[in-house]
Amino acid sequence: MAAPLIGGILDQIIEAGRRLLSQQSSPAAPVVDLEALCARVLARRGEATALASASELAARLERLTPEEELRFFHTLAERFGADRERVLAAAEAYRKDGNPAALRKLGEAVEAPRQELLRRLNMAPGGTRVIVRLRERLLGHLAEEPGLRAVDADFQHLLGSWFNRGFLYLERIDWNSPASLLEKIKHYEAVHEIANWSDLRRRLAPDRRCFAFFHPALPDEPLIFIEVALGRELASSIQPIIDPEAVPLDPGKATHAIFFSINNSLTGLRGISFGNFLIKQVVLELQRELPQLKTFATLSPIPSFRGWLASALDGQPGLDLEPADREALAGLLQRPAVDAAALAPLRETLTGLCAGYLAGTLGGPRPADPVARFHLGNGARLERINWLGDVSAKGMQQSFGMLVNYYYDLDNLELNHEAFAEEGKVALSKELARLAAAKPRPKVRPNDKTPAIATGR
Amino acid sequence: MAAPLIGGILDQIIEAGRRLLSQQSSPAAPVVDLEALCARVLARRGEATALASASELAARLERLTPEEELRFFHTLAERFGADRERVLAAAEAYRKDGNPAALRKLGEAVEAPRQELLRRLNMAPGGTRVIVRLRERLLGHLAEEPGLRAVDADFQHLLGSWFNRGFLYLERIDWNSPASLLEKIKHYEAVHEIANWSDLRRRLAPDRRCFAFFHPALPDEPLIFIEVALGRELASSIQPIIDPEAVPLDPGKATHAIFFSINNSLTGLRGISFGNFLIKQVVLELQRELPQLKTFATLSPIPSFRGWLASALDGQPGLDLEPADREALAGLLQRPAVDAAALAPLRETLTGLCAGYLAGTLGGPRPADPVARFHLGNGARLERINWLGDVSAKGMQQSFGMLVNYYYDLDNLELNHEAFAEEGKVALSKELARLAAAKPRPKVRPNDKTPAIATGR
Amino acid sequence: MAAPLIGGILDQIIEAGRRLLSQQSSPAAPVVDLEALCARVLARRGEATALASASELAARLERLTPEEELRFFHTLAERFGADRERVLAAAEAYRKDGNPAALRKLGEAVEAPRQELLRRLNMAPGGTRVIVRLRERLLGHLAEEPGLRAVDADFQHLLGSWFNRGFLYLERIDWNSPASLLEKIKHYEAVHEIANWSDLRRRLAPDRRCFAFFHPALPDEPLIFIEVALGRELASSIQPIIDPEAVPLDPGKATHAIFFSINNSLTGLRGISFGNFLIKQVVLELQRELPQLKTFATLSPIPSFRGWLASALDGQPGLDLEPADREALAGLLQRPAVDAAALAPLRETLTGLCAGYLAGTLGGPRPADPVARFHLGNGARLERINWLGDVSAKGMQQSFGMLVNYYYDLDNLELNHEAFAEEGKVALSKELARLAAAKPRPKVRPNDKTPAIATGR
Amino acid sequence: MAAPLIGGILDQIIEAGRRLLSQQSSPAAPVVDLEALCARVLARRGEATALASASELAARLERLTPEEELRFFHTLAERFGADRERVLAAAEAYRKDGNPAALRKLGEAVEAPRQELLRRLNMAPGGTRVIVRLRERLLGHLAEEPGLRAVDADFQHLLGSWFNRGFLYLERIDWNSPASLLEKIKHYEAVHEIANWSDLRRRLAPDRRCFAFFHPALPDEPLIFIEVALGRELASSIQPIIDPEAVPLDPGKATHAIFFSINNSLTGLRGISFGNFLIKQVVLELQRELPQLKTFATLSPIPSFRGWLASALDGQPGLDLEPADREALAGLLQRPAVDAAALAPLRETLTGLCAGYLAGTLGGPRPADPVARFHLGNGARLERINWLGDVSAKGMQQSFGMLVNYYYDLDNLELNHEAFAEEGKVALSKELARLAAAKPRPKVRPNDKTPAIATGR
Repeated sequence: MAAPLIGGILDQIIEAGRRLLSQQSSPAAPVVDLEALCARVLARRGEATALASASELAARLERLTPEEELRFFHTLAERFGADRERVLAAAEAYRKDGNPAALRKLGEAVEAPRQELLRRLNMAPGGTRVIVRLRERLLGHLAEEPGLRAVDADFQHLLGSWFNRGFLYLERIDWNSPASLLEKIKHYEAVHEIANWSDLRRRLAPDRRCFAFFHPALPDEPLIFIEVALGRELASSIQPIIDPEAVPLDPGKATHAIFFSINNSLTGLRGISFGNFLIKQVVLELQRELPQLKTFATLSPIPSFRGWLASALDGQPGLDLEPADREALAGLLQRPAVDAAALAPLRETLTGLCAGYLAGTLGGPRPADPVARFHLGNGARLERINWLGDVSAKGMQQSFGMLVNYYYDLDNLELNHEAFAEEGKVALSKELARLAAAKPRPKVRPNDKTPAIATGR
Repeated sequence: MAAPLIGGILDQIIEAGRRLLSQQSSPAAPVVDLEALCARVLARRGEATALASASELAARLERLTPEEELRFFHTLAERFGADRERVLAAAEAYRKDGNPAALRKLGEAVEAPRQELLRRLNMAPGGTRVIVRLRERLLGHLAEEPGLRAVDADFQHLLGSWFNRGFLYLERIDWNSPASLLEKIKHYEAVHEIANWSDLRRRLAPDRRCFAFFHPALPDEPLIFIEVALGRELASSIQPIIDPEAVPLDPGKATHAIFFSINNSLTGLRGISFGNFLIKQVVLELQRELPQLKTFATLSPIPSFRGWLASALDGQPGLDLEPADREALAGLLQRPAVDAAALAPLRETLTGLCAGYLAGTLGGPRPADPVARFHLGNGARLERINWLGDVSAKGMQQSFGMLVNYYYDLDNLELNHEAFAEEGKVALSKELARLAAAKPRPKVRPNDKTPAIATGR
Repeated sequence: MAAPLIGGILDQIIEAGRRLLSQQSSPAAPVVDLEALCARVLARRGEATALASASELAARLERLTPEEELRFFHTLAERFGADRERVLAAAEAYRKDGNPAALRKLGEAVEAPRQELLRRLNMAPGGTRVIVRLRERLLGHLAEEPGLRAVDADFQHLLGSWFNRGFLYLERIDWNSPASLLEKIKHYEAVHEIANWSDLRRRLAPDRRCFAFFHPALPDEPLIFIEVALGRELASSIQPIIDPEAVPLDPGKATHAIFFSINNSLTGLRGISFGNFLIKQVVLELQRELPQLKTFATLSPIPSFRGWLASALDGQPGLDLEPADREALAGLLQRPAVDAAALAPLRETLTGLCAGYLAGTLGGPRPADPVARFHLGNGARLERINWLGDVSAKGMQQSFGMLVNYYYDLDNLELNHEAFAEEGKVALSKELARLAAAKPRPKVRPNDKTPAIATGR
Repeated sequence: MAAPLIGGILDQIIEAGRRLLSQQSSPAAPVVDLEALCARVLARRGEATALASASELAARLERLTPEEELRFFHTLAERFGADRERVLAAAEAYRKDGNPAALRKLGEAVEAPRQELLRRLNMAPGGTRVIVRLRERLLGHLAEEPGLRAVDADFQHLLGSWFNRGFLYLERIDWNSPASLLEKIKHYEAVHEIANWSDLRRRLAPDRRCFAFFHPALPDEPLIFIEVALGRELASSIQPIIDPEAVPLDPGKATHAIFFSINNSLTGLRGISFGNFLIKQVVLELQRELPQLKTFATLSPIPSFRGWLASALDGQPGLDLEPADREALAGLLQRPAVDAAALAPLRETLTGLCAGYLAGTLGGPRPADPVARFHLGNGARLERINWLGDVSAKGMQQSFGMLVNYYYDLDNLELNHEAFAEEGKVALSKELARLAAAKPRPKVRPNDKTPAIATGR
C-alpha cells in the first residue's frame, strides 16, 4: 500500500512547514502554548503550515504530563466550545425567519470548534491514533470532571462517524499473522489471560479461530477480536479450552463453535459499538468454512455476579433467602479465596441466584450483567449455567467459578433481539427458565413487566 | 484483503435480515415506499434487520427514475430535516439554563435526521459509493431547486468528514496498474482528452508520471489524479507532450517536471478539496525519486478566458481598448473557429488581456479564472503565457490557444500562499508583471487594493 | 516481494565486480571476445567477479547481431561441448572398473560445459529471461544448422528442469490485471487475433475466463494461457464468441465452458510442455467457481487441413474420391479465397474428409493435425465438426471455415488418454464415428490398426 | 498469490487419478511396493495418473520407517541407477561414430533414471519439500553406506540446479514477520541459541537486522539467514548483543554492523551454497538503508578450536610449546568446564595458538576452521581475537571463550578472495599478523607456501 510512500512525503511537508513557521517567529519567541497552537491549527492558512501545526500539536499531545493533559481538556471545554452569545443570536434569527440558511447558521454556531480542530488534527500523520489515545485519557477524567462530558461527546461523535462499520474490515488472525499483531492479541486479551507464547500458539491452533475488525487508519490495531474453540460439545469449562497442552481436534470433525472470549482493544473507542455485528459475521464465516458446524454458542464469564450478590445480601435489592443460606453466602463473601469444596454445599442456591441475576428476574427489570446484556441484545439465548466452569482465581472471584453459555441461533436471533429490545423479554432455555423461576424470589421490586420466556429446547 | 470475505458475509447477513422482514410483513403487503424505508432504517431495531433495510435502501436508490429521485431529495429535505418546534424548544431551554446538556440537546435537535440516515446507509455494502453517486445527482438539481441546498450541506458535511485527508493514500499509476483503473483514468481525463489506449500508454511511459489519491472505501476510484511530463525545459506547448508518437526521454536526464493535467473524478465529491494537497505531495515524491529535477511547473489551460473576454467587451467590466482592437476582438469572437493565422495580428493584445485576466488586474480584485485561483491559492507563481500552446479545437475555443505556466517553488510556496490568501497579492514572474501592468487598462473597477507583485525571475 | 530489493542490490554487486575487472585489465586492453567472456564466467573466481562476468555476458548476448549470434552458437557447440578424448578415457575407465566413482566421472565428462555456463548465466539479474530469448533465436537456426541441435538439447534439458510443473503457478487474468500483462495477452493471442482493446475487454468480460501459468523468475510472462467462453450450448461458431459487441451472459446461468484459444507465449520454451496440464486444472477451477457448469469442450481450429488436403489430392497419401469431387476440390484449392457459397456444394465431401483427417483414418495411423493430437492426447473426445464455424479469412484459408469441438469429460479423460497413447485409439462421438467411417475411403495405407471407436453419445 | 488456487486443484486432479488407479486394480490387489510405485511414476501414462502416482509416492516417502527408508535408498541406488550394459554399448557406439547423436545417447545412458524420478516427484504438490527432506535423511546414511553417495550426487545435482541463485529472493525478517516464520528462526538459530520469545523479540528490535534467502517453492522456509547487530564499535563480546534487556540503540546513530550469526536451515540442502552471496548482499542493503554505517564485520565463533588443540597436543600436527604451557593446556582440556579464572594464565598462549590456527600458519596450509574458511573465502580479513568474547558454556567449550572478528571491506573483498582462493594467502589485520607470526611455532609441516600477509590497518 501507499502508506510508506505517503508517510515519508508527509514528514517532508511537515518539516517544510515547520521551517517556515520557525522563520516567521523571532529567534527569542517563547514556545507557543497549546491553546495558541490549537488556534493556529484552526486558523488554517497555508496547507503545509496548517499540516505542520497539526503535526506539532499531535506530537505535543503525545507528550503531555498529567497536569498539562487535564488543562488541555479544560481548554477544549472552555475555549473551543460553542459561543453562547452566537448560539443564542442564531437561534433568535432562526425563530424569526426559519429559513434553511438560518438553520444552517444555527447548526454551525452550535457545533463546538473543537470538532473542526480534531478533524484537522486527523490530517497529521498518525492523527487518528493520537485522537484515539487522547480520548482514552479523557475518559479517565470524566468521573471526576463531569464538565468534560461535552468534550467527550464531540470525540465520540467524530470517532463514531469515522469508525462507521462501512469502513471496517474483518480479518482472520492465526499463527501466520505478524508477531507484532499477535503480541497485541496477547496483551489485549482480558477475559482469559494469555500467559505466554505457548499459550498464544495454542489459541491459534487448527481447532481455534480468531477474527478481528480493523480500520484502514489503524491497520495494526485489532479493534475488537473474538476467540473461538471448535469442539464436539457445548463446552462447560474453560480450562480444557485454554490448556496449552490440549491435543488439537481435526477442525473437519468439529460440530460446535464456542466463542470463549471477546475483547475490545482500544479504550479510546469505548462506546463505539462493533461487537454485536462481529459475532454474527463470524458465525457466517465459520458456516462458510466449516459447513458441518451445527451449534454456535459462547462460554462466557459473569463478571459482576459476586459484586451484585454482595449488594443484594446487603438489602439492595433484597433477596428472599432462607436464613441459613443467607448466612452461608455471607460467610462465603468474606473469604479472601474460595475453593470447590467450600462451594459445593451452596451449589443449588448460587446457581438459582445466578439464573435470576442473568435473566433479570432478580434485580431487574433488565439483566444487570453487562455480558448478559450484550449477548441478549444480540438476540442470543441464555442456555446453561456451568458449575465450576472456571476454577481460576479470577473465575472464583467473579462468579464462584460459574460460567454461562449463550446460544446463537441465526434463525431466531432477530426475533429474540426484538423481544429483548422492545419488551425486555429474555430468551431462556427450558433449564434456565426453570432455574430462574424457582425460589429464591426477590422480596422487593418484583419484576412483573419482564417475565422470562422459555424459547429454547 | 478481507474485502471479499466481509463482502460475502454481509450479503448473507442482509439476506437473513431480508427473509426476516418478509416474514413479518403480510403476503399482500404493498411494496414499502422510500420514505417508510428510510424511517425503518432509522428505527434501528435488530442489527441484521437494520442492515437489510439499509441495503434495500441502497439498492432502491441506485434504480431511481429521475422523478423518483427528485421526490426522494424533497423527502430528505422535508421529512428528514430538523424539527423546527424541537429546535426552538431546545434553544429556549438553552437560553434559560445554558448548561452543556442543554447545548447538546440543542445540537441534537439541529442535526437533521437525514445525517444519521446517511451514516446507516454507509453501513450497507457499497454504501459509500451509493452516497457519493446520490450526491452527484443531487448536485444536478441544486440550480433549479435551491430548497435542496440544506440537504446537500449535510451530504457535504459527512463526506468531508469521511474523506478527511488523514484517510486518503497516494498511489502512483503506471502501465502496470489494473486495466480497469486505467480505463477510469482514460474516462475521467477532461483537460486533454485521451483518445485511445495508445494515447493512454504514452501518458504512462517512462518519462511520464501519474499519481492519484484513493480512499479505502472506494479503492478502485482515483479521487483526484495528476499527470506529469518529465522534460528538459519549461514546456510551452501541450501537443508534443500528448503526442502518442513522441520518443520517451530517459527520466534520469529530466530537469523539469511539468504538471499538465489535474482531474477530479467524482462529481459527488465536489467541494471536498484534495487537490491543493496532492500537488505538493507529488513534488516531494518526484524530488525523492529523481533528485536531479530542478523545476516544477504546470502547463495549464485558461478555461474561461474567452467567456470572460466576451463579457468584458460587452462592458462587464469594461476594457480600455483601442477601437481597432475592440473591433478585431469582436470579430474573432463571432467566428465559429479560429486558426493561428487569424490570431497572429492580435497576439500582443490577447496576451496582455490574458495576463491582466489571470493576475486579477483586469476584472479583479481577485483572478476570475478557476485554474489560476487554484494554483495561486497553492502558492504557485504565474510564470509565462504560451502563445499557441494548445492548438486543439478546445484550446482555441477556450483561450485562443494560449496556455499558462504556474511555477511551484517549494521554498516560496507558503509565503506566496499567505500573501494571496490574506492580501490578495498575486505572485508574478517579471515577464508577467510587465504584461499585466501594460495597457490595456480596465476602465472601471480599478483594482487598487491588489497590486500585482513581481516575485519571480 | 523482494524483487526490487534484490534487484537493486545485484546491480550494485555487479557494478562492483565490473569496476574490479576493469581495474585489472590494462587501459588499452581490447574488448574481451564472447568466447573469452564465457570462459571467464566458467572460471568462477570471486562471487562478485563471477556475477559481473555473467551479467556482462547477459548484456552482450542481448545485443548480438545476427552474425555474432550464429557465431556464438557455434562457439557453444564447438568450444563448450564435451571433450571427446576425456569422454572416451572416462568410458574406458568405467569399462575396466565399473565403480560408481568411474560412472560419475563419465557423467561429468559427458555433460557439456555449456550447461554449467548457462547455470551461471542464470545467476545474473534477468538471466532466466536472457536464456529463454537466446533459445528462441537458437531455434531459428536449427533447420539450417543441424550441428546446433546438441546445443539446443542442453538448453531444453535445463529449461525443462527449471520450468518443472512443480514451480509453476496458475493465475486468473481479467480486466483488473495489469495493463502491461493484458498487452501481452493481446500480443501473444495467435488463434483468434485480438484487434484492439475493445476486443480484449470483451474477452475478459464477466462471461469469459482466462487463465495462465507463470514461473516465479518470469512473473510478467504468461507462459501459456487459455481463453474460455461461458455459454448455454456447445458453441458451433467462433464469430459470436469474439464479437466485441456481444451482450455478456450472467455467468451464473452458463452451462457450457468453451475453450476457444490456447496459446504458448514464449518461443524459447518450445518443447517444454505445460498445456496438457493447464486445461485440466482450468476445468477443475471452473467447476469450483461455477458448480452448475455441465459441459467442458473446445472450439478448435484445424490449422493444417487445407495443406494436408492439397498433398492428399496430389497422391500423398491418396484418396478414394469420385472424380467430380476431386476436380471440385482441386478447383477450390486454386482459388485465392473462398466463400460460403463456393463451399456449399462440397459440404459433405469436406466434412467427411475432415473427419477422417482428424480421426486418423485418413493419412494415419495417428491424426496428423497437431491440435487434434494435443487434445486427443489429453484424453478429450472428437465431438463435432462445425461447418462455417470460422468464416474469417484465416479460418477459410486453413480449413474451409470448419472448426471442431473436443469434449473434455473428466471421468473418461484418463481412459481415453491411455487408449490413445498406447493403442492409438481415437475417442469419437457417434456422429464423428459415422463420418469418419463413411466414404471417401483412403486408397493407400489403410489404417487397420487404429480403428476409430465411438465412445461418445 | 495463486498457491492456494493451484493447491486445491492439484489435490482434485490427484484424487481423480487415484480413483482411476484404484478402479484399475482388482479389489484384492496387494498394496503396491515402493519400487513398483517408482516404476509407475516413471512409466508416465496419463497426466493425472502420473501425478496421482507421484503424489502417492510423496505421501509414502513421508511415512517411511527407518528400515524402509534405507531400503528405499538402496532401491534408488541399485534399481534406478544407470544400466552398465547400456552405458558401455553407448560408449562404444560413440567411440566408433562420434557424432553428436551418439554422444547424446551416451549422456542419456549415463544419467540415472532416478533423476527423472525426482523431477516427476517434484511435480506433486509439496514435492520440492519432500525431496529436500528425503535428502536430509539420505545424508544421515552416507557415512555408513558409501554406496549411496551416487544417489546423493543426483539429489545434489538437481537441487543445485533448482536452487540456482537466480531463483532465490532476499527478504528482511522483523517483528512484523509471521509468527510461524519467526518460530523457525528461533528453531534454526544454532550459533547463539534463542531461548524464548523475549530473546527473539530483542534480536528483531530496531537496532538489529535479520535477512534471509527464500525459494518460491518453499516460501515459508528461510534457507539461510543472518543476524546483524547495529552498534557504535567493533563488538568484542556476544553477551551484550544477545542480552534481552539491552536498551536498543537508535539505528540512525549506528556506525558498525556486526554479523553475529549465520545459519543454514535445511540439512537437505547441504552443499548448495547460498552464504557467500548473502553476506555481500546484506552489506549493500544496509549501506542503502543506513548510509552512515562505516564498518561491516562479524563476531564469529571458532567452533573447532578446542578439538583441533586436543589433536595438536597429541602430536597432530604437533606444536612447538614450552613444556609448562603444554602441561597447562593438557590440564585445561581435561576439565569438564572452564571459567575465566582458570583461563587467565593461558591467555597469551591460547590467543597465539588461536591466531595461528585461524590464519592457517598452524596446521595449515589452509585454515582448518570452517567458519574461517567461509569468511576468508568471501574475501573478509581476520581482524581481532576477542578474549572472553563468549562466556556461555558453549563458547567456553568450543574455543575457551574466544570469538573472532572478520572484517568485510567491499573494496578489498575480491582481491582478498582471489589471493585466498588461488594462492592461499590469508588477509590479516596487523594485530593478527603479529600474533600469527609469534611463537609457538609448529614443529612439523611448516607452511612456507602460505605466508600470512598483513593487509589491514
